[in-house]
Amino acid sequence: MAKQLKGIAASDGVAIAKAYMLVDPDLSFDKKTIDNPDAEIKRLQDALDASKAELELIKSKAAKSLGEEEAEVFEAHITILSDPELIGNIEDKIKNDSVNAEQALKDVTDGFIETFEAMTDNQYMQERAGDIRDVTKRVLSHLLGVELPNPALIDSEVVVVTHDLTPSDTAQLDRKFVKGFITDIGGRTSHSAIMSRTLEIPAIVGSEKATTDIKAGDTIVIDGMHGLALVNPDADEVAKYQKMQKDFLAQKAEWEKLRDEKTSSKDGVHFDLAANIGTPDDIKGVIDNGAEAVGLFRSEFLYMDSSELPTEDDQFEAYKQVVSGMNGKQVVIRTMDIGGDKQLPYLPLPDEMNPFLGYRAIRISLDRTDLFRTQLRALLRASAYGKLAIMFPMIATVAEFKKAKAIFEDEKQKMVKAGTKIGDNIQVGMMMEIPAAAMIADKLAKYVDFFSIGTNDLIQYSFAADRGNEKVSYLYQPYNPSLLRLIKNTIDASHKEGKWTGMCGEMAGDQTAVPILMGLGLDEFSMSATSVLKTRSLMKRLDTKEMKKLADKAVTEAETNDDVIKLVNDAIK
Amino acid sequence: MAKQLKGIAASDGVAIAKAYMLVDPDLSFDKKTIDNPDAEIKRLQDALDASKAELELIKSKAAKSLGEEEAEVFEAHITILSDPELIGNIEDKIKNDSVNAEQALKDVTDGFIETFEAMTDNQYMQERAGDIRDVTKRVLSHLLGVELPNPALIDSEVVVVTHDLTPSDTAQLDRKFVKGFITDIGGRTSHSAIMSRTLEIPAIVGSEKATTDIKAGDTIVIDGMHGLALVNPDADEVAKYQKMQKDFLAQKAEWEKLRDEKTSSKDGVHFDLAANIGTPDDIKGVIDNGAEAVGLFRSEFLYMDSSELPTEDDQFEAYKQVVSGMNGKQVVIRTMDIGGDKQLPYLPLPDEMNPFLGYRAIRISLDRTDLFRTQLRALLRASAYGKLAIMFPMIATVAEFKKAKAIFEDEKQKMVKAGTKIGDNIQVGMMMEIPAAAMIADKLAKYVDFFSIGTNDLIQYSFAADRGNEKVSYLYQPYNPSLLRLIKNTIDASHKEGKWTGMCGEMAGDQTAVPILMGLGLDEFSMSATSVLKTRSLMKRLDTKEMKKLADKAVTEAETNDDVIKLVNDAIK
Repeated sequence: MAKQLKGIAASDGVAIAKAYMLVDPDLSFDKKTIDNPDAEIKRLQDALDASKAELELIKSKAAKSLGEEEAEVFEAHITILSDPELIGNIEDKIKNDSVNAEQALKDVTDGFIETFEAMTDNQYMQERAGDIRDVTKRVLSHLLGVELPNPALIDSEVVVVTHDLTPSDTAQLDRKFVKGFITDIGGRTSHSAIMSRTLEIPAIVGSEKATTDIKAGDTIVIDGMHGLALVNPDADEVAKYQKMQKDFLAQKAEWEKLRDEKTSSKDGVHFDLAANIGTPDDIKGVIDNGAEAVGLFRSEFLYMDSSELPTEDDQFEAYKQVVSGMNGKQVVIRTMDIGGDKQLPYLPLPDEMNPFLGYRAIRISLDRTDLFRTQLRALLRASAYGKLAIMFPMIATVAEFKKAKAIFEDEKQKMVKAGTKIGDNIQVGMMMEIPAAAMIADKLAKYVDFFSIGTNDLIQYSFAADRGNEKVSYLYQPYNPSLLRLIKNTIDASHKEGKWTGMCGEMAGDQTAVPILMGLGLDEFSMSATSVLKTRSLMKRLDTKEMKKLADKAVTEAETNDDVIKLVNDAIK
Repeated sequence: MAKQLKGIAASDGVAIAKAYMLVDPDLSFDKKTIDNPDAEIKRLQDALDASKAELELIKSKAAKSLGEEEAEVFEAHITILSDPELIGNIEDKIKNDSVNAEQALKDVTDGFIETFEAMTDNQYMQERAGDIRDVTKRVLSHLLGVELPNPALIDSEVVVVTHDLTPSDTAQLDRKFVKGFITDIGGRTSHSAIMSRTLEIPAIVGSEKATTDIKAGDTIVIDGMHGLALVNPDADEVAKYQKMQKDFLAQKAEWEKLRDEKTSSKDGVHFDLAANIGTPDDIKGVIDNGAEAVGLFRSEFLYMDSSELPTEDDQFEAYKQVVSGMNGKQVVIRTMDIGGDKQLPYLPLPDEMNPFLGYRAIRISLDRTDLFRTQLRALLRASAYGKLAIMFPMIATVAEFKKAKAIFEDEKQKMVKAGTKIGDNIQVGMMMEIPAAAMIADKLAKYVDFFSIGTNDLIQYSFAADRGNEKVSYLYQPYNPSLLRLIKNTIDASHKEGKWTGMCGEMAGDQTAVPILMGLGLDEFSMSATSVLKTRSLMKRLDTKEMKKLADKAVTEAETNDDVIKLVNDAIK
């Protein structure tokens, strides 16, 4: 039997292919005194030329598979390699100090990196430091004759094996060749895991030892449903997983047929199945996957993919694109959720000991009402082009919601007075992601049009456990009855006031949670677009009366997260 | 009318005295080339001698007013001033570089500080860096002929004005002369504020501009009840506040009479009034203030005031001292709450992005069961000497409590088998300070003997707001109905299972919260020892049936923190 690796099931599907090790090679070297500086400068020049040629190739590949914008980072790298000041300094160092090219390169680039990184209030320069570090690695690899893994150059079917998948790695992956991946670290809500679902690549994260237990060229099976990887499987095992792969693809094809159906339970109760998106470009995936609405449009990309504050017009264009792109289906846009782990180069935020418990989201908006009003005006203008709803993130108290809503009303009245066209019925709601707010949902329900439960933060605060911290990851307990009670409290409170409740966290597309959430009467389920059809298929098979009984048991009888998982498994099978 | 400064009322009482500015003077200087190094070395020697003499004086004063242990830090400073390596380096620098003593001092001590601070995994060396910084300041002040404020040298009645009161400042304050203080920053639960209540010094914190608006020698009135300071009051104002001071002292004398009374409401319902303590030495204050129990003994001091892990015997001696010192009255000892903002030099904890949401308290104990078992054995042995209860901090789930309790039972059985004497009825409970736990109090109540609500953390997690972060301090809302509901849920759940609930956070001694907590049926109120008599006096005047009505209104009708404050003010007056 083949060696097995267990990890967290991050994205469904089965992959069988050779391992591609996306692991930094050993780039260490010794400092040497050299006799012939001209020969050494020639070595440097050759390495620079080879690096440039390689980057040109990566860039053209990336432009084709990912788009011009994603490829720009490599243009930046090429520019650095042609910087006369940098190259001149390295050459001078070789000549004056009689050191080898490796040492001269390192000394000079270390100096640049240090200078740039010291500019702690300038994120732009800090990112340039990262670029120089990347470029240095590439030139070093050529000097040392060591091959650097290049995800963009993968041109045969592989399973990528890596410690962690960074956003820049992800940008270079070509779905045609990358059939699956497995990482050492990360949880179900890590960047790697979310990307694997978006790209629909079978994946396992948090395997702890993929990069040590797998060698380049090993045949790897990724079972993304069960978080299981096989290293060099025998023929029987390959056959078994090929069958599983076939079944999975057949099931997916079945799901495809549900694309244009409305979502209903077995007993005909309708639920809204919506998608979470991050940029206007994501709308295509939403439509392709048959989602009935956008349950969460994160407006942060406008702030984060920019070197200055986005103008009202910039924002308006983006919101309009999403709202009109959904053809009359509802789009819920969340006002900016900056702070916490999301920083902006042009809006210095205080250094905080616990940023997740700090100055972020609506707390910034209520403090910096100039930014908030600009965003609200852009949203109001976009509301004329479709069915727009707005929600505020990180509301903890009734007073905060009333304050935010009053600012919205003020801007709205000004627009009405000025004769600007706006939508008829703009719903204004809030994210339910702070325990104190969920405890007082009955009072908040009087003022909001809807709640949208953000489970990632609600879990993190309810259990007082940073979801990015491996040491306390066991406290990420989405099925714990304590959390289910907060959710129930929220849903019940909204219904009592004739309002509705959605959920836009990871949990809304989780196949163990969905049955319970149906039983609790959640109105809208918003998830990765790629989870929509699978969830629609699941819901079709479930009876809401049965699910209500299941949910009641989970909320009143169960004591632990595991108790609830068992209840669901017993009820569904 | 005098200029007024508003801040947060930190500690009751009235003070009228001259301002003493505990503010760093300007110690800047220019680098100079000197011609006569011997004269410069003489200048250095004079400054060193003057600094040593000053430190000897401060040390002897501190030893008298605060005890030998507190005075040790100054001995460490004197030792640094006599270090031949340090002094030699400075003298060499003066000679070799022909620079003035100020510059040589700074260059050499900066080097030491940098080296020590780079040892990030060695807290001892990091603290030494702080000592060198302090000493450098003192020597510089003598070189520059500038006076450094010396809290220990205050010998007339003053109001201390400072940006923030550090623990080392506090250690030097002589209560005989320091009649009050006012700070620029800090909240009701900051170190300064807690110390002011422990020392019973009228105080205002968070005034924002005390150090800019007050000048040395101004006459200052501190009204600690209302968080109001007057700068250079006129005769009428002085008379008014002298009267207020007299009334306050008379009231305090009245409270003193309640020392040996049991605590009851107007209608004869008994409540336990307990005290929170940090070291065995605090027992004296508990007895002096007539507390009926120790509701929280923080065991951290054993871990923090030590350069290595405390042994079982060390711990046993400390626990025994407290348990036997209370003469049969109950003592609740909390197992170690390390992590978060509390680090240990000999137990390296991971660097965390959000330490308050990280690896701390019971999470460490359940992971490092070796440490946990040592502590439990020490506690079990101490239980033979009085009425001991044990509680676990940061319990989030039923599974965690059961796990911790099982380890306790295991150690207990081993002791029983070995014939070691232990107490008859050791209650085992938990801190209720995580929202998820409060939501599932009914399930937890089956397993615990009692709950103790830790309001500081419970508020911080419920509102997702770091209580040390000024930018979100408005979310420290102890009266918010959402929090009161979590408290009610906890109390009701415990009573249903025949268990009891205490509270050991700041809120238990808060005069606005106490009426509501009585109405909610809280069994034990544990607070700073100095708040006990005042609270006993308040409780005597309140009828529990009335308070129950008030609490019901606060929990069901109120929407905001302010609503509840108004309800209490209307009900009590």
